Amino acid sequence: MPNISMRGLEMPASPIRKLAPLSDSAKARGLKVFHLNIGQPDIFTPEAGLEAVRNLDRKILEYSPSDGFRSFREKLVHYYSKFKINVNADDIIITTGGSEAVLFAFLACLNPGDEIIVPEPSYANYMAFAVSAGAVIRAVPSHIEQGFALPPLEKFEELINEKTKGILICNPNNPTGYLYSRKEMNRIRDLVSKYDLYLFSDEVYREFIYTGSPYVSALHLIGIEENVVLIDSVSKRYSECGIREGMLITRNKELRKTVMKFCQARLSPPLLGQIVAEASLDVSEEYMNDVYDEYLERRNFVIDSLNKIPGVYSPIPMGAFYTIARLPVENADEFCAWCLSDFEYEGQTVFMAPASGFYSDPELGKNEVRIAYVLKKEELQKAMLVLEKALEEYKKINS
Amino acid sequence: MPNISMRGLEMPASPIRKLAPLSDSAKARGLKVFHLNIGQPDIFTPEAGLEAVRNLDRKILEYSPSDGFRSFREKLVHYYSKFKINVNADDIIITTGGSEAVLFAFLACLNPGDEIIVPEPSYANYMAFAVSAGAVIRAVPSHIEQGFALPPLEKFEELINEKTKGILICNPNNPTGYLYSRKEMNRIRDLVSKYDLYLFSDEVYREFIYTGSPYVSALHLIGIEENVVLIDSVSKRYSECGIREGMLITRNKELRKTVMKFCQARLSPPLLGQIVAEASLDVSEEYMNDVYDEYLERRNFVIDSLNKIPGVYSPIPMGAFYTIARLPVENADEFCAWCLSDFEYEGQTVFMAPASGFYSDPELGKNEVRIAYVLKKEELQKAMLVLEKALEEYKKINS
Repeated sequence: MPNISMRGLEMPASPIRKLAPLSDSAKARGLKVFHLNIGQPDIFTPEAGLEAVRNLDRKILEYSPSDGFRSFREKLVHYYSKFKINVNADDIIITTGGSEAVLFAFLACLNPGDEIIVPEPSYANYMAFAVSAGAVIRAVPSHIEQGFALPPLEKFEELINEKTKGILICNPNNPTGYLYSRKEMNRIRDLVSKYDLYLFSDEVYREFIYTGSPYVSALHLIGIEENVVLIDSVSKRYSECGIREGMLITRNKELRKTVMKFCQARLSPPLLGQIVAEASLDVSEEYMNDVYDEYLERRNFVIDSLNKIPGVYSPIPMGAFYTIARLPVENADEFCAWCLSDFEYEGQTVFMAPASGFYSDPELGKNEVRIAYVLKKEELQKAMLVLEKALEEYKKINS
Repeated sequence: MPNISMRGLEMPASPIRKLAPLSDSAKARGLKVFHLNIGQPDIFTPEAGLEAVRNLDRKILEYSPSDGFRSFREKLVHYYSKFKINVNADDIIITTGGSEAVLFAFLACLNPGDEIIVPEPSYANYMAFAVSAGAVIRAVPSHIEQGFALPPLEKFEELINEKTKGILICNPNNPTGYLYSRKEMNRIRDLVSKYDLYLFSDEVYREFIYTGSPYVSALHLIGIEENVVLIDSVSKRYSECGIREGMLITRNKELRKTVMKFCQARLSPPLLGQIVAEASLDVSEEYMNDVYDEYLERRNFVIDSLNKIPGVYSPIPMGAFYTIARLPVENADEFCAWCLSDFEYEGQTVFMAPASGFYSDPELGKNEVRIAYVLKKEELQKAMLVLEKALEEYKKINS
């Protein structure tokens, strides 16, 4: 049998996937499992998007343009303008989810062995795309005590060497919910400018910002226009993760030309998803406000509940729909597994993502979990009670 | 401005894309352009597939499983059994088009610098995926004089070295329409077995075989079960190229586990396309027979017409919906461009893909073009006449 590739062996397994079999067996035992582990919203997809595909009047489901339908990209121009992001349709390339935008950005910008610096905890799949592209992620830790604020610039500069080609941020952040301030974004801009780096900025959660602070997009930053690659997706914003429609946006024409070669090789982004996503852009303000209010209420409830549980601490996330919470346990990996394999409270248990999977340093995040508040409030209420009971029992059996 | 990656610079531009601006300007001049250049069928997508998505009853378009819906994979098991390909649902991984199946196969099997041997002319995008994965394609030329039969094994063995990790075939072949015989497939099997190589076999055109010869799938070959990676797609078979649903099929469990890491990183294949593709598997025999008859008639007409044009020669393709034809011109690149930029016959012209883009050796295929017979017969009739007139006029101005 021929060998598997080295990068195949190096590919990280998702921190959540490891626990999935335990969750399945908990369900097999008849337990109700509250999924706090994934970013799959329970919010309804906008009716306009669903209707568009239900009314499909095509006879042939043919290739769409490799950079996506122009009509879709033109509507996106209008969408971004509402956030004072001024781009034109040519700056936007439609990708197969935000995932492909990250992969293509890495393939087009980074040579094997090149390094990018990422504040951690960070979205685990960035690492997977870096491995796919042969690039190396160097992590700068952010800390729960500082609410996961941007680490000091010196920490970035310590890692910068001739292999360093970029900085990657996720803003608002998955998994922390942190939103970078204008001051922090300006600091990133100065760093990017000083060393002429790429700035990869994943901003898929921009609709979900729960604070008075402004949303500062990487595309707002003056003087690094050629350096910025924005990653976007309709998945979270319209609760249509399954359709796989994302965007890679850059004002750097040469880079776009290169990304397009990767796009042309894979022929086209999904046709039907584009139809849904384009129609979803017409969603009413009411829908977006309702979704926003829903998440805001959930956030407030979850964070408040977590901080009421003895020994638990969660900073207040400013955006997205996640938080990283510190638990009164030594090893959150073991605790999360135990919740699924051994624990139950009134026929229920919780599935959380151990935060260790979001850090590269094995010493970090050991007693932290990521909690996604993508369940209805009544469900979250029960889940928080179950978590409290689990911690009580876990303490008992471990003392 | 930071540098583009080396592989970004190395990515080949599609042989067709280069001429696309000329085609646009021909249309702008008011010409009717016959598209013989692309593999976008004009056949209607099965009604069952379209109806499935029109009847969509989901409220949330959520992630599907990373390896695709189990119900879809189980139906595929039945589909393959009709071709005496015995696989189970676990052997099948749903990918975002056949394109992603090729990319993930390369990422999972090949290290940067590893080599795969491919008979050429070959589908240009294999090269693009090899560049993406840092792998190297070594080409073994096949020749129009032999109807593009499998080159002698010695030609493969001459290229085999410690970096060689696999052989890639496309069967029935794009761009030549050649179908490998049982004898040829057995020769490939022996080679794969002798050197313990991967055999990547792209068999997306299996429904379109116009000869009495049997279809021998790489998955029919005995003794190399762990070496074979089948690439498949519903795009051509059901005329639904836009939905981006493909398959990577292997009995090699360790390889599947590795491919799944890449699948999990990109979360899921497109949801809506899976709904269409799964329903399309229920298509009536009548539909498939009609499509088959249509392509058969087109093939016979196009090949006959080509060989009637003075100085033109096309072998008889046994499958797919392409042929490589030799033209009485010195440089088919220039001729194809000229057809779009300068020529017209009664307000019409033809867009063909110069075959040079399907060869790595710049000396090969210089006077050849790829013709896709994906237009209705009446259109093909006109296109063949236009081609004949173009060759006449080109000869005049070049003599």
